[in-house]
Amino acid sequence: MDTWLLTRMQELRDLQGLIGLATWDMETYLPSKAGPARSHQLSTLQGLHHERLVDPRLGEALARAASQADLSEDARAMVAVLTRERDREVRVPAPLVKALAGAISDAIPAWREARQARRFSIFQPALQRLLSLRREQADAYGHDGERYDALLEGHEPGMRVARLTPVLSALREHLVPMVGKLTAVRRPVAPFLMGRHYDKDAQWAFTLRLLKDIGFDLEAGRQDLSIHPFTGGTHPLDVRLTTHVDTATPFPAIFSTIHEAGHGLYEQGFAPELHRTPLSAAPSMGLHESQSRLWENMVGRGLPFWRHYFPVLRAAFPEALSGTDVESFHAAVNAVGPSLIRIESDEVTYNLHIALRYELELLLVRDELPVDELPAAWNARMEKYLGITPPDDTQGVLQDIHWAWGELGYFPTYSLGNLYAASLYRAAKRDLPDLEAGLSRGELLPLRDWLRTHVHQHGFRLSAEERVKQVTGQGLTDTDFLAYLKEKYGALYSLSL
Amino acid sequence: MDTWLLTRMQELRDLQGLIGLATWDMETYLPSKAGPARSHQLSTLQGLHHERLVDPRLGEALARAASQADLSEDARAMVAVLTRERDREVRVPAPLVKALAGAISDAIPAWREARQARRFSIFQPALQRLLSLRREQADAYGHDGERYDALLEGHEPGMRVARLTPVLSALREHLVPMVGKLTAVRRPVAPFLMGRHYDKDAQWAFTLRLLKDIGFDLEAGRQDLSIHPFTGGTHPLDVRLTTHVDTATPFPAIFSTIHEAGHGLYEQGFAPELHRTPLSAAPSMGLHESQSRLWENMVGRGLPFWRHYFPVLRAAFPEALSGTDVESFHAAVNAVGPSLIRIESDEVTYNLHIALRYELELLLVRDELPVDELPAAWNARMEKYLGITPPDDTQGVLQDIHWAWGELGYFPTYSLGNLYAASLYRAAKRDLPDLEAGLSRGELLPLRDWLRTHVHQHGFRLSAEERVKQVTGQGLTDTDFLAYLKEKYGALYSLSL
Repeated sequence: MDTWLLTRMQELRDLQGLIGLATWDMETYLPSKAGPARSHQLSTLQGLHHERLVDPRLGEALARAASQADLSEDARAMVAVLTRERDREVRVPAPLVKALAGAISDAIPAWREARQARRFSIFQPALQRLLSLRREQADAYGHDGERYDALLEGHEPGMRVARLTPVLSALREHLVPMVGKLTAVRRPVAPFLMGRHYDKDAQWAFTLRLLKDIGFDLEAGRQDLSIHPFTGGTHPLDVRLTTHVDTATPFPAIFSTIHEAGHGLYEQGFAPELHRTPLSAAPSMGLHESQSRLWENMVGRGLPFWRHYFPVLRAAFPEALSGTDVESFHAAVNAVGPSLIRIESDEVTYNLHIALRYELELLLVRDELPVDELPAAWNARMEKYLGITPPDDTQGVLQDIHWAWGELGYFPTYSLGNLYAASLYRAAKRDLPDLEAGLSRGELLPLRDWLRTHVHQHGFRLSAEERVKQVTGQGLTDTDFLAYLKEKYGALYSLSL
Repeated sequence: MDTWLLTRMQELRDLQGLIGLATWDMETYLPSKAGPARSHQLSTLQGLHHERLVDPRLGEALARAASQADLSEDARAMVAVLTRERDREVRVPAPLVKALAGAISDAIPAWREARQARRFSIFQPALQRLLSLRREQADAYGHDGERYDALLEGHEPGMRVARLTPVLSALREHLVPMVGKLTAVRRPVAPFLMGRHYDKDAQWAFTLRLLKDIGFDLEAGRQDLSIHPFTGGTHPLDVRLTTHVDTATPFPAIFSTIHEAGHGLYEQGFAPELHRTPLSAAPSMGLHESQSRLWENMVGRGLPFWRHYFPVLRAAFPEALSGTDVESFHAAVNAVGPSLIRIESDEVTYNLHIALRYELELLLVRDELPVDELPAAWNARMEKYLGITPPDDTQGVLQDIHWAWGELGYFPTYSLGNLYAASLYRAAKRDLPDLEAGLSRGELLPLRDWLRTHVHQHGFRLSAEERVKQVTGQGLTDTDFLAYLKEKYGALYSLSL
């Protein structure tokens, strides 16, 4: 690859890193009056990134490189990944980019106002406009008749509705009766979650210990506080996690730290030779999410993990956790039941929340569901899948900000994350027979190293599904995830699921 | 002014803001392994800023705007400021820019190594190379026979050697005997600075109180910790100060907070209509420094200020400050005596450290002093001006990083800051007869508001000296500063100075 092209690749990565810094800072340390200034700065950066990406000279250099016979495998993958990204960017006409940015700016306050008033109708016109612009954008990207595919491609390259729908539908068919059975078992709320106090500093110290044990490199990353936990940063050696501490319960801090650490380990794990290139990235949101969910759910909500950490936690909060043993703590961590709010749901019901959103946004993009019927369609599905009905739109169709951001095709990547996580975890147990015994001794590094070897280091060399297939022997499937749920919750609830 | 030009001005300001963010982050929160990644990111940003600035279309738009008869006064000033900045950038050929960047990269480790070994000769070749490149750069900028002017212009637009030398020489002539008289009075080190402990959190809380009282808007800025205190940020509504806390003495935290707050108030004070334009900046380093020094020295080391704050400080550190009264505290804050290290020196000797550096770098740039004779020349002047000789180069010619950064023409702006500060403070007392009585009641806002009205809000509408002249009735002078020193130290030392 010629130096000019490599330099341009590196500059694009640097600009993405700087967008990451400006965004991280906005959620952590930005003074309250500086919001509009930061928006301008971010939009200038994004504009420069766009300008560099659509530069015709870059297109020519990529085409020239692609036709070189002697390109290394990595260089070929770099050229392919950047070409795909550039082609998408080039296809969207500037007026549409501008119209979309404006529609999103209008939609976010409209969504907030609608939530305040608990009335979807306030948000409806903004959503209608966003939908129509996104459809236009999908047509500009190009597709084989299924517009949603063009949007999904932005989050999950290579995935298609025709492949995704059967898997998510089958999963839903299995989950609905499973949730029914689990919900029939009534369990009281654990006493240690009622009116106890969990010191903020002690929670922070516990999360830092977890990060250390899990192998997150705190010299190549950091953790800060923010209202909504996220993983950001500027480079694989500068990965920034945030967590959220609630003094009434240790769960948000613990599980968001483990979740974000899963994302963070992925980012830190990209091979050094891929740094500052288009391959220094996960191939999809779904595969990225598989890493956070594998650590949060398969490891962090597992009994082996808590056999080691519950005594540590109890030593940190002796009063609050007095009278609680590891089994009842583990049961509380895995309480299952239908809930109105996706982000408060458990790992069994979670994918039903996603199925509902995926089905509805597919209908919306296909123009098969009028926007004014969206709340009714939402509520009907909530009743059908989870047996509950939101008392108002704020607890229903207005709960997530994603649609106000104009994001369509993003939600299903959460379920892909769960499915890929289960398949990868099964493969890890196959390769590391001592894995769970090790977890119960607090040994987290063998799993991190296995993931680094088989997933992290490779970055975007292969698509998400190709990567999973290479590790597990098969691509996207709900089999491993369902088997995992049946085994875990069958034991926890003494039921045959 | 046309929209295209205004947009380009705003983009340049946004890029400068982002450079500010990346730099601030590097000194505060960047993980240790991320240094090289951050260097790449900064260099990409700086490259884009350069590219945008030298863009011929910008040159044409500026020329077009300058010829418009109906331009507002502010718009005309914006065009003039940006044209001057652009002209300088355009004149330096790309290979020279690259050579300078490389020479600085080499000089910094050489300087560190030389300090470690306490031997100037290790740094000498790197400094020689930097000097020769800076001379070349000065010629590229253009000058009337005095190369140093072209470098000075980068820090102090409009100032010239022919104007500066007589003032700094006269100042030096006055200061040398004054320091002699003050040094003849032997004063013991204050007991509260010997072996006492000042709690870190209590110091931090005290600095935050100072920031609040001084009128630094903590919703449009913040304070963090760093090894070397500085003022940075991304926008007048996002101004970032840092301070440094030493548990053995409260002085570094207190005085660096007041000093940086002086810079910070300036940045926060730019009129909103100037935000994101070339006028949203101080016209010179010297005028910027006048704000930090006015607050740090004239206010923060003054007796009126401590009449109010000493009781507050003693309440925060009752043990360490027991047995100390406000007069002895004030005397300790203003101890005068020759010192080897500039940044540890007091406000009387400080300008002698600067005179020495200014004279030497003028000789170097004029090629009138061979680089290998620099340490001897340094030591000779130290002896002549301050009566002391550095025991080694690390405590002499190698103490500052500025020359390793390739900065020439920067040091004199510190003295300009002191002189402008004294003149502005005199004018403030003239306009606000109750000023110092108010300070002794903890009323700091009238001074902030006066500075905002007369200096801050105007940004770069006028040059530094023009601005000072407009406020005080005269431009650069050492009269006010010398009068200030004589009055203050005459009283403190019961001497006629």
